[in-house]
Amino acid sequence: MTPFVAELVGTMIMIIFGGGVVAGVNLKKTLSHQSGWIVIAFGWGFAVMLAAYAVGNVSGAHLNPALTIGLAAAGRFAWGMVPSYILAQVIGAFLGAVIVWLHYYPHWKGTEDQIAKLRVFSTMPAVPNNFFNLISEVVGTFCLVFIILALGGEGMKFADGLQTLIVGFLIVAIGLSLGGTTGYAINPARDFGPRLAHFILPIPGKGNSGWGYSWIPIVGPVMGGILAAWAYIIIF
Amino acid sequence: MTPFVAELVGTMIMIIFGGGVVAGVNLKKTLSHQSGWIVIAFGWGFAVMLAAYAVGNVSGAHLNPALTIGLAAAGRFAWGMVPSYILAQVIGAFLGAVIVWLHYYPHWKGTEDQIAKLRVFSTMPAVPNNFFNLISEVVGTFCLVFIILALGGEGMKFADGLQTLIVGFLIVAIGLSLGGTTGYAINPARDFGPRLAHFILPIPGKGNSGWGYSWIPIVGPVMGGILAAWAYIIIF
Amino acid sequence: MTPFVAELVGTMIMIIFGGGVVAGVNLKKTLSHQSGWIVIAFGWGFAVMLAAYAVGNVSGAHLNPALTIGLAAAGRFAWGMVPSYILAQVIGAFLGAVIVWLHYYPHWKGTEDQIAKLRVFSTMPAVPNNFFNLISEVVGTFCLVFIILALGGEGMKFADGLQTLIVGFLIVAIGLSLGGTTGYAINPARDFGPRLAHFILPIPGKGNSGWGYSWIPIVGPVMGGILAAWAYIIIF
Amino acid sequence: MTPFVAELVGTMIMIIFGGGVVAGVNLKKTLSHQSGWIVIAFGWGFAVMLAAYAVGNVSGAHLNPALTIGLAAAGRFAWGMVPSYILAQVIGAFLGAVIVWLHYYPHWKGTEDQIAKLRVFSTMPAVPNNFFNLISEVVGTFCLVFIILALGGEGMKFADGLQTLIVGFLIVAIGLSLGGTTGYAINPARDFGPRLAHFILPIPGKGNSGWGYSWIPIVGPVMGGILAAWAYIIIF
Repeated sequence: MTPFVAELVGTMIMIIFGGGVVAGVNLKKTLSHQSGWIVIAFGWGFAVMLAAYAVGNVSGAHLNPALTIGLAAAGRFAWGMVPSYILAQVIGAFLGAVIVWLHYYPHWKGTEDQIAKLRVFSTMPAVPNNFFNLISEVVGTFCLVFIILALGGEGMKFADGLQTLIVGFLIVAIGLSLGGTTGYAINPARDFGPRLAHFILPIPGKGNSGWGYSWIPIVGPVMGGILAAWAYIIIF
Repeated sequence: MTPFVAELVGTMIMIIFGGGVVAGVNLKKTLSHQSGWIVIAFGWGFAVMLAAYAVGNVSGAHLNPALTIGLAAAGRFAWGMVPSYILAQVIGAFLGAVIVWLHYYPHWKGTEDQIAKLRVFSTMPAVPNNFFNLISEVVGTFCLVFIILALGGEGMKFADGLQTLIVGFLIVAIGLSLGGTTGYAINPARDFGPRLAHFILPIPGKGNSGWGYSWIPIVGPVMGGILAAWAYIIIF
Repeated sequence: MTPFVAELVGTMIMIIFGGGVVAGVNLKKTLSHQSGWIVIAFGWGFAVMLAAYAVGNVSGAHLNPALTIGLAAAGRFAWGMVPSYILAQVIGAFLGAVIVWLHYYPHWKGTEDQIAKLRVFSTMPAVPNNFFNLISEVVGTFCLVFIILALGGEGMKFADGLQTLIVGFLIVAIGLSLGGTTGYAINPARDFGPRLAHFILPIPGKGNSGWGYSWIPIVGPVMGGILAAWAYIIIF
Repeated sequence: MTPFVAELVGTMIMIIFGGGVVAGVNLKKTLSHQSGWIVIAFGWGFAVMLAAYAVGNVSGAHLNPALTIGLAAAGRFAWGMVPSYILAQVIGAFLGAVIVWLHYYPHWKGTEDQIAKLRVFSTMPAVPNNFFNLISEVVGTFCLVFIILALGGEGMKFADGLQTLIVGFLIVAIGLSLGGTTGYAINPARDFGPRLAHFILPIPGKGNSGWGYSWIPIVGPVMGGILAAWAYIIIF
């Protein structure tokens, strides 16, 4: 398996679980309907964790252009490989969203709330506000990339396999603590790929795909990732 | 202890915990009544985890015909041992369901909802739809077997005892993210053995045992397991 | 520190956390009032886990007469030390309950429900039924002791410190899956010590201490522990 | 990075996550509004855990004056370094609270409940009672420091990186079991730094900063930390 395939498959696994948990909570008539934020946060945390276990040995399991760029900015990843990683991540995220759409197929029709359906694919802010939504995505991604850099820093030791579990809990934590504003995209591919899927797929009563907002979960995470790399280099 | 006994005892432990958590949530007058999907998902995840710790050293703790067949299809398990493993799993699942029935005995009578009672034993879909219910079971089991194959792949290293914990969280994740449609049987023995127990046991006001649906949580998981093995071989 | 002190301190820690979480959920005007079964189950699981980390090196952290007796019946603990262990456990559980009473002192007065207050200390069944309540305690404790024996069995290897975490999750699992009937005492000291505290302490509007039921969470766990030891010896 | 910077950055990370989770639950119109105590407890536990992973190698990640003082009282930390550690912790906590304020900026205006908003920054008791609120903070911090001392005691072994995870679960446990009375400050810096931020920052309709109560989450934790050190020395 090449790193390209690994990133694609990993991101696809991540979105199957991550999009899936939002579908279970947001769509009507599911067994997990309205089961709460704790379900969302652990669902997304385990989504990232499992994807990272599955493909981490091959590609490092970035699964996220903001992390790929942040690692490059911190000197831990070759800039030349950044474009292919990002392409793989976007394709994987798109394909994962298609699987979620299929898996929950009978539940789209019965759910009227168009925003609830869109959020299965991509993030939409709780209170629309370009400036502060951007801040939220910057803060969330800064924490993500800064702590991942610290977890992989010099002198850090983890028993085999433990570090990936901690990264999973990091994602749970970001969801619990910082996700309540914009829905914590903190990952351009995770937001853009599924938004494209939402745009293309025939989802009953789907409404628009929120393209007017879509630049924020792209620009914010990239800014956050680069700032985290700079801060890490300065502080550590 | 032979592998046959190990699979039987392991699957029995799994169903005691897995059926037990659904009983606690679904049956009236329990202390955990209506405690939500997070309880179900962690209950089932720990159910598999504990059973795997208990008997994993002896039999590998498949606990699931779809996994047994998937591992065989991936060349990691001898086809000749598949029938005896499956038999042990079905017997264990049946016996586990009997224990759950006994443990929650005073609560059956007070619960009118027949589907809620049946779901303590076996899965029933949120929205009945043969094609998409089958898809759901295929997708869920595909993720299960594909990720288990990846966790045991070449170059994967886990500190002693850690891998089984991660498998437990994998089951939690499948429940949180993919369980909302059909109730994630993802295991023919887990569904068929307890359905037989539901059919035979004298449960007050139990209603029918959902045999018309029962082929889906058998066929779907087997298909998902085999597809996962093929996909794993091709991709990795 | 002697094993006696270790068991006493460990059981005290366990009850501070275990009784504390029920107080937080059951008593009125707390910040965690009615926060659900998931809180109870994780609270008790971490209670046992933390106590086991704190004193496990000295006494093995049984914290539970049913486990002490079960280990002795399985040949893994000296019968001669059983009485002193049990005494330490009961004293520790009593003292832990006193701390819980003090910690939540302002909340007793405002809570009218006498059973809710008693359950902070000791278990009371959801549906009173001597025979089946006894069965429930036997089943729960059987699972506890059987799986602990398996976790410590030949050939089991855990990275340093990991086994105690898994035991914590075992307690979470028993709570989630089997606790909904009797409240999972699964431990005579955990039930009797705090019941004595409830009987003695001046708790506003406390009602009776449920002595008529109190033999079940003593006899059931002891039976379950011994049966688990026998079953383990036969099967493994 | 010096230990001073490490404590500052670590405490800042802790408050971003810890204050953030309370903001998500308490403030109106967030996606995690009213998502419950389980969210609070895991959010704070992971907050401490992540901060400890990030800076533990440099400063030991006390993040808490009560722990710094407790470790000094137990002979495990130099008294001469205590003042600078505390200063760093208070500054870090203040700065973390500023980030939380910014991150959730659009949500302050719509939330009328002044106590709910104050609790994003600092603790306020469920039932105001100077004596018993003090007891609660003493008990909570005693458990924190005593168990941390035990986790680092002679003969304790943890696989690389595992101990910090367990400390995270210890914080979750304190929240679940003992947090329902005063909101478990158990840390003077965590309470004072953000209270100062609440006092200074322009928060719409913020009300007073609870200075009358503010001495309790300072005095209580320091008393608890010292008592825990003494008790640990005597018992172990």
